[in-house]
Amino acid sequence: MKKVKVGFQGVSGSFSEEALFLYFKENFETVTVPEFEDIFKGIINNDFDYGILPLENSSTGAITHVYDLLNQNEVYIIGETFLKVKHHLLALPQADIEDIKEVYSHPQGFEQSRPFLKMYPSWKLIPHYNTAKSAELVMKTQNKTMAAIASLRAAELYGLNILREGINTNSSNTTRFITLGKNLTFEEQSNKVSIVLATKHTAGSLYKVLKNFAENSINMLKIESRPIPDRPWEYFFYVDFEGNLEDGKILKTIDRIKEDSEYFKMLGNYKKAEELAR
Amino acid sequence: MKKVKVGFQGVSGSFSEEALFLYFKENFETVTVPEFEDIFKGIINNDFDYGILPLENSSTGAITHVYDLLNQNEVYIIGETFLKVKHHLLALPQADIEDIKEVYSHPQGFEQSRPFLKMYPSWKLIPHYNTAKSAELVMKTQNKTMAAIASLRAAELYGLNILREGINTNSSNTTRFITLGKNLTFEEQSNKVSIVLATKHTAGSLYKVLKNFAENSINMLKIESRPIPDRPWEYFFYVDFEGNLEDGKILKTIDRIKEDSEYFKMLGNYKKAEELAR
Repeated sequence: MKKVKVGFQGVSGSFSEEALFLYFKENFETVTVPEFEDIFKGIINNDFDYGILPLENSSTGAITHVYDLLNQNEVYIIGETFLKVKHHLLALPQADIEDIKEVYSHPQGFEQSRPFLKMYPSWKLIPHYNTAKSAELVMKTQNKTMAAIASLRAAELYGLNILREGINTNSSNTTRFITLGKNLTFEEQSNKVSIVLATKHTAGSLYKVLKNFAENSINMLKIESRPIPDRPWEYFFYVDFEGNLEDGKILKTIDRIKEDSEYFKMLGNYKKAEELAR
Repeated sequence: MKKVKVGFQGVSGSFSEEALFLYFKENFETVTVPEFEDIFKGIINNDFDYGILPLENSSTGAITHVYDLLNQNEVYIIGETFLKVKHHLLALPQADIEDIKEVYSHPQGFEQSRPFLKMYPSWKLIPHYNTAKSAELVMKTQNKTMAAIASLRAAELYGLNILREGINTNSSNTTRFITLGKNLTFEEQSNKVSIVLATKHTAGSLYKVLKNFAENSINMLKIESRPIPDRPWEYFFYVDFEGNLEDGKILKTIDRIKEDSEYFKMLGNYKKAEELAR
């Protein structure tokens, strides 16, 4: 059986890689790329079959750059998965907490660990490309005044010690990852639809669009707004709702939404991920 | 006439300070604080009468931390103002573009100048506290391989040269600032209401809340969603709409919204800022 190629952003030990393992389970090989947009380019150029990206965190909210890229690229969401994100304070094995002067992480790592970090106001927080690269940096420099906020897997991979465990605010801290592919595909089990739309620039236009969900008894799961470039204070609305694109009621609702919108783009129809235990 | 005291986050030369000058015009003195949350603390502790904070940028969207703080603190929005944000590449007077190796700015400065920065892939982008502090850093270190992305005012204040002018993507790039005070106040001219709510956790609940706007012909201006801590994939919705809290129709609608919501908080009633020419 031919292995599928799947791209993820970052380096080994990242949460994206963990989400990829969780979603694809077996028969895959991985490709790493430096930036979120390279996932879209890689799929469009057939460098890999699928890509995986974080879209939303249960504590810090939308990863807005990924939302924007979804709208700008002809790539579709084919699945989603939830990953519990547990951050640890990592340092060299010979380092104590008193040695630490500088902490490296992705800004989200800092944000999700804010109350913990407040207990150490003298630490300099230095944003880095991602959590795994921060762990790699601490290992490479062999400087015991440096720490990283990253995953257990990053600690193992780069031979670092867990100085403080589970430092993120929120024990239910979960990231929603999406799997992307080149084509709009859906199966019988696909029960979640993602779209993006822009309303007409008239009073009540957002309400008019959303009314279509209620009138057809369709359950709207989430709405996220993002600015439209060059049109200050106008927005793209990203809406997730329950349904399958084979269902006539769903197709009719989508037609109505298109009529009531100035812009519409289908992002995908896929199987809702299982909720994780809190 | 007694001067009012107004707090802003950052240092002299920041966009927040510019917005403050624009909003208060005269008879004020300013206080600087290091963090967004210190604005809320300062108002609550009577360290200053008002505070000013950025809430939203027309290119990059919501400043989510400020949204979260608005919900967590007993402080009200009493006004808003728009500021055109123009970013420049600043360096020491003796530096040429070929000398630059490192660029300092707030992450928003990088994000808003992304296409320009892509032309110089060898530059190391180093996130710093804010744009003005980045300019200050370049001036203080006197290192001609360092540049900052910051405002014209920061260039003047720290004696830096504008190496490249207007490097942000978007010529219409505007930030919406809000003025905060200790009390919920409104006047005859107040025509914009900001609220935050959480819907009941049942299908169609968001639609049910929003229906109240349409049924009472109230113009909803914006909706922003933010995660509820410890309740993955449930959201606070921040809604702006047109109206005055003296108006019976508005009061009735707010009562209905409260009934249909699990959580409701009034954020303020104030005068809509004039749209800037694009």
